[in-house]
Amino acid sequence: MKLLLLSNSRGPDGRYLAHALDAITALAGSRRRAVFIPFAGVTMSWSDYTATVREALEPVGIEVESIDEAGSVQAQQAAIAGAELVIVGGGNTFQLLATCRERGLLDAIASVVRGGTPYLGWSAGANLACPTISTTNDMPIVDPKGFGALNLIDVQINPHYTNALPQGHRGETRNQRIAEFLVANSDKTVIGLPEGDWLEVGSGLTVLRGPFPALRFSAGQEPVTLEPGMAI
Amino acid sequence: MKLLLLSNSRGPDGRYLAHALDAITALAGSRRRAVFIPFAGVTMSWSDYTATVREALEPVGIEVESIDEAGSVQAQQAAIAGAELVIVGGGNTFQLLATCRERGLLDAIASVVRGGTPYLGWSAGANLACPTISTTNDMPIVDPKGFGALNLIDVQINPHYTNALPQGHRGETRNQRIAEFLVANSDKTVIGLPEGDWLEVGSGLTVLRGPFPALRFSAGQEPVTLEPGMAI
Repeated sequence: MKLLLLSNSRGPDGRYLAHALDAITALAGSRRRAVFIPFAGVTMSWSDYTATVREALEPVGIEVESIDEAGSVQAQQAAIAGAELVIVGGGNTFQLLATCRERGLLDAIASVVRGGTPYLGWSAGANLACPTISTTNDMPIVDPKGFGALNLIDVQINPHYTNALPQGHRGETRNQRIAEFLVANSDKTVIGLPEGDWLEVGSGLTVLRGPFPALRFSAGQEPVTLEPGMAI
Repeated sequence: MKLLLLSNSRGPDGRYLAHALDAITALAGSRRRAVFIPFAGVTMSWSDYTATVREALEPVGIEVESIDEAGSVQAQQAAIAGAELVIVGGGNTFQLLATCRERGLLDAIASVVRGGTPYLGWSAGANLACPTISTTNDMPIVDPKGFGALNLIDVQINPHYTNALPQGHRGETRNQRIAEFLVANSDKTVIGLPEGDWLEVGSGLTVLRGPFPALRFSAGQEPVTLEPGMAI
């Protein structure tokens, strides 16, 4: 399997996917035809979302088609099966999972990625690759009828990871939220993936990439700092 | 119905429930025996959680018993039926709802509150009073097998409301999250309830209380500022 799982979509300069463009190019190799899954987009139309991603990847020769334009659910499943690259965008993780589940696409995506089709996801699209979506930061705006996701990796990603709170705010910190997850799911590992970083999954090894250290959380242990280039 | 739905548990001085103690005293009136539902607590034991709340309410003469100490599920349901006051603490909303649903307590709580038993909730306990838990900020650490909640009020509360982000963070703002909720649930109204404030529900009227303005969000409209003392 080959996956790139990005914490977020925009680099410090605000340009879409630009911070990971070299890694995306390497992931794609000679593959050109990408199927894009825009279902996490809620406040922008799926066609606008697709256009944004198409524009971002055009310079590296990746051709982006939206799964939603494939027509029937059967045609969408066939589009996944025929894709050279699967791309899952960020937005709301609950809506992403709900829509994939409704359309019967979860098994189709997991199957092709396990068969070797590269997978690129960011934010909600990174959460979707995990065993469950239970480490998302998103608001549960729709019920996805089960939190089980693609289960392509065995760790849980917490994207947009930071432990900072707005000044004076008394809500839970991210570390407190992850600690709660690990009480309820003590057999799991969580990677707190800061903005700007990604996980590169391939050949049985998952490596932290990007400029920043990440944190690995396990039940009953202090978080472990992971440096870029380290296997998680 | 009489409800106090607090955004959070601690005032600026850090003391537990102290900022709303006068309002809690007025809610209780001559009632003394409160049943406390500690299920939102994840990283602290339910007995420790109950002790904290008991200590906070002892000065105003409210006696706090944990629902979890009532024994069998039938005894817990009977404890709800016999309570003079129902108190639901904050923590993780998903675990709170999941546990209430597993134990068959949702109908029992809704029934006594509709029958006149006062309800006090904060944070996750305020979310539980809403039609669904879909406007919680919490991490979905367990699947509550449906997002439907007590449905005691017809608005959705977003507790710990702020639109601030940690500096440099690119995750969604709270307003963006609420906007996503309203795209998926366009018939709903969301009250962004800042820390320190609460909603006072009684006699067909729901009033904003506390020191700070709140925001009312509806689909397709700019948020409306609510001043303390205003009906929502």
